Amino acid sequence: MRTFRLVIACPDRVGIVAKVSNFLASHNGWITEASHHSDNLSGWFFMRHEIRADSLPFGIEAFREAFAPIAEEFSMNWRITDTAQKKRVVLMASRESHCLADLLHRWHSDELDCEISCVISNHDDLRSMVEWHGIPYYHVPVNPQDKEPAFAEVSRLVKQHEAEVVVLARYMQILPPELCSEYAHKVINIHHSFLPSFVGAKPYHQASLRGVKLIGATCHYVTEELDAGPIIEQDVVRVSHSDSIEDMVRFGRDVEKMVLARGLRYHLEDRVLVHGNKTVVF
Amino acid sequence: MRTFRLVIACPDRVGIVAKVSNFLASHNGWITEASHHSDNLSGWFFMRHEIRADSLPFGIEAFREAFAPIAEEFSMNWRITDTAQKKRVVLMASRESHCLADLLHRWHSDELDCEISCVISNHDDLRSMVEWHGIPYYHVPVNPQDKEPAFAEVSRLVKQHEAEVVVLARYMQILPPELCSEYAHKVINIHHSFLPSFVGAKPYHQASLRGVKLIGATCHYVTEELDAGPIIEQDVVRVSHSDSIEDMVRFGRDVEKMVLARGLRYHLEDRVLVHGNKTVVF
Amino acid sequence: MRTFRLVIACPDRVGIVAKVSNFLASHNGWITEASHHSDNLSGWFFMRHEIRADSLPFGIEAFREAFAPIAEEFSMNWRITDTAQKKRVVLMASRESHCLADLLHRWHSDELDCEISCVISNHDDLRSMVEWHGIPYYHVPVNPQDKEPAFAEVSRLVKQHEAEVVVLARYMQILPPELCSEYAHKVINIHHSFLPSFVGAKPYHQASLRGVKLIGATCHYVTEELDAGPIIEQDVVRVSHSDSIEDMVRFGRDVEKMVLARGLRYHLEDRVLVHGNKTVVF
Amino acid sequence: MRTFRLVIACPDRVGIVAKVSNFLASHNGWITEASHHSDNLSGWFFMRHEIRADSLPFGIEAFREAFAPIAEEFSMNWRITDTAQKKRVVLMASRESHCLADLLHRWHSDELDCEISCVISNHDDLRSMVEWHGIPYYHVPVNPQDKEPAFAEVSRLVKQHEAEVVVLARYMQILPPELCSEYAHKVINIHHSFLPSFVGAKPYHQASLRGVKLIGATCHYVTEELDAGPIIEQDVVRVSHSDSIEDMVRFGRDVEKMVLARGLRYHLEDRVLVHGNKTVVF
Repeated sequence: MRTFRLVIACPDRVGIVAKVSNFLASHNGWITEASHHSDNLSGWFFMRHEIRADSLPFGIEAFREAFAPIAEEFSMNWRITDTAQKKRVVLMASRESHCLADLLHRWHSDELDCEISCVISNHDDLRSMVEWHGIPYYHVPVNPQDKEPAFAEVSRLVKQHEAEVVVLARYMQILPPELCSEYAHKVINIHHSFLPSFVGAKPYHQASLRGVKLIGATCHYVTEELDAGPIIEQDVVRVSHSDSIEDMVRFGRDVEKMVLARGLRYHLEDRVLVHGNKTVVF
Repeated sequence: MRTFRLVIACPDRVGIVAKVSNFLASHNGWITEASHHSDNLSGWFFMRHEIRADSLPFGIEAFREAFAPIAEEFSMNWRITDTAQKKRVVLMASRESHCLADLLHRWHSDELDCEISCVISNHDDLRSMVEWHGIPYYHVPVNPQDKEPAFAEVSRLVKQHEAEVVVLARYMQILPPELCSEYAHKVINIHHSFLPSFVGAKPYHQASLRGVKLIGATCHYVTEELDAGPIIEQDVVRVSHSDSIEDMVRFGRDVEKMVLARGLRYHLEDRVLVHGNKTVVF
Repeated sequence: MRTFRLVIACPDRVGIVAKVSNFLASHNGWITEASHHSDNLSGWFFMRHEIRADSLPFGIEAFREAFAPIAEEFSMNWRITDTAQKKRVVLMASRESHCLADLLHRWHSDELDCEISCVISNHDDLRSMVEWHGIPYYHVPVNPQDKEPAFAEVSRLVKQHEAEVVVLARYMQILPPELCSEYAHKVINIHHSFLPSFVGAKPYHQASLRGVKLIGATCHYVTEELDAGPIIEQDVVRVSHSDSIEDMVRFGRDVEKMVLARGLRYHLEDRVLVHGNKTVVF
Repeated sequence: MRTFRLVIACPDRVGIVAKVSNFLASHNGWITEASHHSDNLSGWFFMRHEIRADSLPFGIEAFREAFAPIAEEFSMNWRITDTAQKKRVVLMASRESHCLADLLHRWHSDELDCEISCVISNHDDLRSMVEWHGIPYYHVPVNPQDKEPAFAEVSRLVKQHEAEVVVLARYMQILPPELCSEYAHKVINIHHSFLPSFVGAKPYHQASLRGVKLIGATCHYVTEELDAGPIIEQDVVRVSHSDSIEDMVRFGRDVEKMVLARGLRYHLEDRVLVHGNKTVVF
C-alpha cells in the first residue's frame, strides 16, 4: 500500500497537532500510523504521519504546496516522502563482509525497501558477492599518504548515483568533514560499543582484560566529530570469560549486523528525526 | 505537574485525531504526551493524550461534559483521569514475598504513584513487613474444601477499600469468575512463562529436563479463562544447564518482580488499552 | 591449532575426573578447555575436554584404543573428535532464505568450521544462491499425496554425502520417524517460540491478538515427537502493539537465523551433550 | 548441603587438573560442581571445585594442610571456604534505597546466604528500614571539607564487624585508597554504564541528549583507580526517546539493583576469580 510520510520537527506550542490533523482530515487523508513526541529538554515537538496516498485528492507536489503555509506558521523542519519512490542507497565496505552480506540479503529478499545503487569499497575482495546481486561495484583504493583523490572519487560516485543514503557497512575509513556535512543525517555508520567504553587501540583486547560481560554495537549518523553523532539504534550481546577475543569479535559482528540493519530500516522508513544531537525514532 | 489523561479506543475512521486535537487546542490544552495506534487487524483506533491540567479552563467534570458529544459521535470507549487522584490499589499475596516487597518498596520510595489501600493474604506470614509500611493487612485464609466464604470476604474488602486496581502479587489462588468479570481489566496477575510452555505440574522441573535456556514472566489482566488474559508486559532471563531448579526458580522470581512492577506502572499511568484480548501499551 | 575433543557422559561417581585427567596428564596432554557438569536430577556426569593434538604422543585411533578401558570402567557414552576432520553438513531448506543465506555466509567467511556437502530443498528457488557458493543443490519436490518417494531420495542423498549433521534451515516439512531416529541428535531444527506458546495455525496472528511482547526462536534436535526434542539454544526479541504481523514475522526471522547459527556452532564444536531430553551446552 | 569450595588460580601447565582431582579422589571427595578455565591471554589457569563436606574424612583445617604441598608445587593462589561459615557482609549506603532494600529483602527471604553485620551510611534516612530487619545501623556523616575522620570511623566499624565483604550499595562517596587496597577484591561497587560512556557530570542528561537506546549498570571490585576495577557483572535495559531523564534514572535503578544482587551472589559463592584486572566468573 502506497503511503506518504509526513515528518515534522518544530518548536513546541499549543495547536500543532490540531492544525496538522485538520489539514489531513480536510483532505480526507487516511492516517495509517501517527507518532508524536514532545521533548521537554529542548522544547521541540516531533511528529510523523503515514497517510494512504490513494485517500488524498492530490499528489506529493500538490501536498507540498498546500502544506507549506502551515509549515511556515510553525517554523517546521519538515519533509514528505512517497513510498513509491524507493530511496537510493550507496553501500560502502572494506574487507569484512558480515554487514554487507546481511544488507544485500535483506534487499535481495525484499525485506529492505530501497534501491541499492552501488557498492564502493577500498578493496576488491567483495566484488563477486556484490555483482552476483546485480549491483555495480566500485573499487576505490585509498592511499594512506594521500587520501584526497580517493575521497574525491567516492564523492563523485555518490553524486553520480544520486545517493540519498550512504551506509558505512564496516568501511573502516574516516570520511572527510566536507562529505559528512554535505550529507548530514544521511550517512549511517556502525561501530562496536562497550560498557564502559575503551579508548585507543584493540578495544576487544582491553575489554577482555577487564572481564567485560557485554559487547555492544551503536548505529549512528556520521558527523564531523568521530563516532559522536546522533544514535539511531544500539544493542548488546552477553559474553563471558570463556569467550576468547576471537569469540568476542564474532559476537560483535553479529550484533553489528543486526543493529545496522535495524538502523537502516528506521532511516528508510523515515522514522528517525534528529534535533541537535538527539534522535527520536518513531 | 498535574495532568489529565484522555484515553480513547474506537472504530477507526478519518477525522478522529483532527476532532480530538481541535477540541484540545480550542481549549488551549497543552499536550505533554500523545500516542496513537491504528490497528489493522481489528480496524480500531487507540489514542492517549496527557494534557497539563493548568492549561485548561475547566476541571475534569467539565472536561467530561464538553467531550461527551465527540465521544458519542465516534462511538468511543473512553475515560479521562486526573493525576491528582491517586489510584487505590489492593495487593493480594500468599507466602512468597518477592513481588510484594518489591512493590511496597517502590511505593515507599515514591516511585509508584498510587495509594496502597491494603494487602490481603491467605496467610499471615507477611503481616509484619506490610504493617511496617503503615498499610492494613488482612489475613483471609482459604479453606480448600469451601473457598466461597474466603472469596466473599475478599470481595467485601476490595469493595470496602474502593479498589480501582487489584494486583495478584503471587496470590496463588484462582479468583472466582464473578470477581474477574466485575473487575475486568482491573485485576493484574503475574506468572512464569517458558518457551515453549509446559503444561501441568512442576513447570520448572519440566523445563530443566528439556534444557530450556530462557525463563520468562508474563503480566496480564485476569480473565475467567485462567492465564489467558490480555498481556501487559513480558520479559525473560537466560539460564543454562549449570543452573539448578532452585536457581531457575530464583531467576524466575527476579523476572516476575520486574515485569509485574512495569505492568502495574503502565496500568497506573493509563497506558494500557484493551480491545478484545489485545493490548496497546503506549 | 588442531585439537582433539573428548566428550563424555556417564553415571556420576567419585573418581571420574581424576581418572580422565590422569590419563591425559600421563600422556602429556595439554588441555586448552575443560568443562564439567554434575546433574543432580539425573545423577549423570558430563565432561568435555579440548586437548592440543600436538601435545599427545599418538593420533586419534591410538587415543581411542588407549582410552577404551577407562570408558568401559565408568560406563561412558563418549566420543573423541579431531578438529582437522571438518564435519560434513547437509542443509535443507524450502523457499524462505534467511536462515540458509546466513549459514552460507558464515561458512563462506570461514566463521563456521565445517564442510557443507550439499543443500536439499523441496523447491528450486534458492538454487542460484547456493550454487554461487560452489555447493551442490538438489531439488527434491515433495508430493503432498505421497511423500515417501521424496523422503527416500532425501535419505539417499544424506547417506551419499555421508552427512554427519543435517540442518533444517526452515525446511517446513516433517521428517519421517525413521530418519529422525537414524540420525538421532544429528538433525537440528529451528522454529519460532512464544511466551506462552500458541497451539494451531497462524501463531503470529494469535500472538498479535493477545498483545504478546516477545517473539522467540528455539533450536533443538529433531525427535520423533514434533518440536519436542532437546533444546540447544533459544532467544527472544521484543515487539510491541505498533508492530504489524509482518513486522513480527520479520523479527522472528532475525531471531531464528541468529539462534540457528549459534546452535549449529555449538554442535559443530561438540559442545552439546544430550541425556534423555536434557542438553548440556558447554 | 554443606560443601567446601576450593578456588585456585595459577600459571597454566600440564598436570594441574590431574593433581587436584587425584587429591580429591584419594580422599573420596564428592565433587558437586567443577569449573575450569585456561586463559590464553595471560597463560593462567583457573579452577573452582565444590565438594560435599560429609564425603571427606577431615575438616577444613586438615584439608588446608594436606593440600598445601600441591598448592606450593604449582604456585597457586588459592583458598578453601566452608559453606557452613556464612560470610560477614557490611553494606554501605547513602540516601537512595533501591539497592539496599533489594539486598535486605533477598537476605531476609533467605535468598542471599550471608550474615549482614551492619549498615553504614553517611545519612540517617534509611535507619528505620534497616533496623526493622534487626541489623545495626551506623550513621557516619562525611564532612566534605575533611573526610578523614569519617573514613577512619568507617574503617574502624568494618574491622570491628570483621567484614569479609563490603558492598557499596549506592554509597556515593569515594573510599580512600588505603581502604581499597586493604580490602582488595572485597569491596563491591555498582554504577551506571552507558554505550558509549559519558564523561563528566549528569551522564543521564548527556545520554538523553544523544538519543542513547540502552542504559546499563556495572558491578565491579573497587580499586584505587575510580570505576576501573575488575568487572563482576553487567546488564542493560532498553530506553527510547519517549523516556524522560527521570524514566531513564528509574530504569537505571532497576538494572543497578539486579546487577548488584547477582554480583554479590557470585562473590558470596566464591565464583569470582581475579587475575590482574580480569575476572573469571564460574
